[in-house]
Amino acid sequence: MKNFNFYNPVRILFGKGKIAEIGKYIPKDKRIMLTYGGGSIMKNGVYDQVKAALKDRDIVEFGGIEPNPTYETLMKAVQRVKTENVDFLLAVGGGSVLDGTKFIAAAVYYEGDEPWEILSRMRPIRKAMPLASVITLAATGSEMNSGGVITRAETREKLSFGSPLLFPQFSVLDPQVTFSLPKRQVANGIVDAYIHVMEQYLTYPLNTPVQDRFAEGLLLTLIEEGPKAISDTEPDYNNRANLMWAATMALNGQLSLGVDSDWATHMIGHELTAYYGIDHAVTLAIVLPGVMRLLKEKRSEKMLQYAERVWNITEGSTEERIAKAISKTEAFFKSLGMGIRLSDHGVEADVIDRIIERFRMRRMTTVGNPKDINVEEVRTILEDVM
Amino acid sequence: MKNFNFYNPVRILFGKGKIAEIGKYIPKDKRIMLTYGGGSIMKNGVYDQVKAALKDRDIVEFGGIEPNPTYETLMKAVQRVKTENVDFLLAVGGGSVLDGTKFIAAAVYYEGDEPWEILSRMRPIRKAMPLASVITLAATGSEMNSGGVITRAETREKLSFGSPLLFPQFSVLDPQVTFSLPKRQVANGIVDAYIHVMEQYLTYPLNTPVQDRFAEGLLLTLIEEGPKAISDTEPDYNNRANLMWAATMALNGQLSLGVDSDWATHMIGHELTAYYGIDHAVTLAIVLPGVMRLLKEKRSEKMLQYAERVWNITEGSTEERIAKAISKTEAFFKSLGMGIRLSDHGVEADVIDRIIERFRMRRMTTVGNPKDINVEEVRTILEDVM
Repeated sequence: MKNFNFYNPVRILFGKGKIAEIGKYIPKDKRIMLTYGGGSIMKNGVYDQVKAALKDRDIVEFGGIEPNPTYETLMKAVQRVKTENVDFLLAVGGGSVLDGTKFIAAAVYYEGDEPWEILSRMRPIRKAMPLASVITLAATGSEMNSGGVITRAETREKLSFGSPLLFPQFSVLDPQVTFSLPKRQVANGIVDAYIHVMEQYLTYPLNTPVQDRFAEGLLLTLIEEGPKAISDTEPDYNNRANLMWAATMALNGQLSLGVDSDWATHMIGHELTAYYGIDHAVTLAIVLPGVMRLLKEKRSEKMLQYAERVWNITEGSTEERIAKAISKTEAFFKSLGMGIRLSDHGVEADVIDRIIERFRMRRMTTVGNPKDINVEEVRTILEDVM
Repeated sequence: MKNFNFYNPVRILFGKGKIAEIGKYIPKDKRIMLTYGGGSIMKNGVYDQVKAALKDRDIVEFGGIEPNPTYETLMKAVQRVKTENVDFLLAVGGGSVLDGTKFIAAAVYYEGDEPWEILSRMRPIRKAMPLASVITLAATGSEMNSGGVITRAETREKLSFGSPLLFPQFSVLDPQVTFSLPKRQVANGIVDAYIHVMEQYLTYPLNTPVQDRFAEGLLLTLIEEGPKAISDTEPDYNNRANLMWAATMALNGQLSLGVDSDWATHMIGHELTAYYGIDHAVTLAIVLPGVMRLLKEKRSEKMLQYAERVWNITEGSTEERIAKAISKTEAFFKSLGMGIRLSDHGVEADVIDRIIERFRMRRMTTVGNPKDINVEEVRTILEDVM
């Protein structure tokens, strides 16, 4: 096991009716900016619950944060924060709204040329506004971590950032608010959480049984609970609660302690979203099997462990067992209604050169933390999943 | 799943040489009281490492905190904190030193008649001193939670307390510092962690697969890694690291979220320690099998899950599978060198009446959170493990 530091001060309020408690955790003197997305919170009652919980408070609103939140939109929010003297941000929505809100919290105090440098040049964040969230979709884990991903529409770049100053002060997770989500978004959430776990698990063994078993426990939960959520005609509270909690635990920092994590699938997936606008989770479901096939020999030890403990595959040669685990993984994504080939989404082969060229421009020679994927091998991965 | 709140802001510094980093996390202007136990930290080099890390700091020392820390000793520390204007507590030792230090942190500001009321009357803690820990034994989980257990020597009472104000600001876990521990203490730590998990797991099903699988993952880790630590002639770093991390995760609050937890084994075990001075973990190893046998029908669903997922027992009738799981559990404790009958420790049958009488004096009619053990049934449990 490698050395590590761990710190996660997010307060989680989980369960039915928990939105009603938020007033207790925001100081009375704060001027709150409520940030949200396309307005689904108006239809599903979440907006009304939040307003009721904060009925005597001083609130300004900023809606219209996109899925894959854009720098352009968020900078308008930064301007409003400054002109309206906002001093607390409350994100009400999914991971995109919260990621965007984290960026606003940091960008307000950025002192360099332009806040985009937080992403493009990984400039350190020295100060940030307090923020919190009411999460409406179990997926990104943003509700219990201090990072985010932002897209610049102008240049089609999608980049990540993070700082311990950006942990939400609290996050509300009421599984009932996910009942009205379209099944496509539910499926996206399940896959997103699954691949967050895989990025921290399917690398190289470092003798970390607690972290491994926690990861496997989350994968098994997603495999058991995911298809139920897709096939149910009426949402089941416990089913949605388990998916929500699994997604939160999948990316709160614990799984990556002392292990080798990867994130190659995310780096390649972000480019597909930036160029083609494909849903984030869908890009991950497309790319991961290609990454697995490329690395099936190098990472065979962890792949065999995954095959056995997650899919109960114990028969056959190493190669056969790994191949079966990969096809089980693909079948799981497909069972959620997801097209897992680039061609399912109208992507053409010329994107491969563009993605590789972009990685080269960023002076990358490898993709992912274990540095076992050369940039040129991204071609093999993407051709494989074409 | 039940509703829950979760909050755990403890910063964990885990790994080789991590004691050297503690200076960064204690403000320079603090007058620190270093609390410790019987002096093993002088022999194993931990004291020297702590002093080196804090070489320019203003430090007073308070040693002699007992295993099962006593109110009497801790009140002397409270006096020293006041007379010497200490404003930061650093516990260096095992769970007893840290539990004692948490009590000091709360007792200093207690405004009622006497701080014992924090325990005897469960008085709320409204203010506490900042504290942190360098932990030298993986066992109690105190390093990542906000509770503790204190004994009053005079009256032979052992009671617990807790408050969100009592989370350590940081805890250092360097697995190397456990290398010099006597095997008996290593075994105690393994069993303590195991039973912390069981208290939060082996109750009633509430459809909580994430929490269940995390619990099972910790139990499996302790079963695999525990015997290695006992049989190794030279301590193995990863083995000790895995035990340390499992013990910390066993009681950091996560496993009990949304589930029914128990703590009956601890309540009965505390009485055995208070009367006979038997090591805490040993009392738990004695009592748990008795509790399991008493509840094998009421809690059969979770017992069968435990049998299957932890011990791989899938054959036989319900009764046979549960009996086998209980005997596997007992064999595991014995394999660590532990005497798991009261008679192994010179305890005589008259203790049973005394314990039941004491529960009655506290106006208890049941023992444990699910309220499925009548006080009178404590007799059945203890006679069973006599």
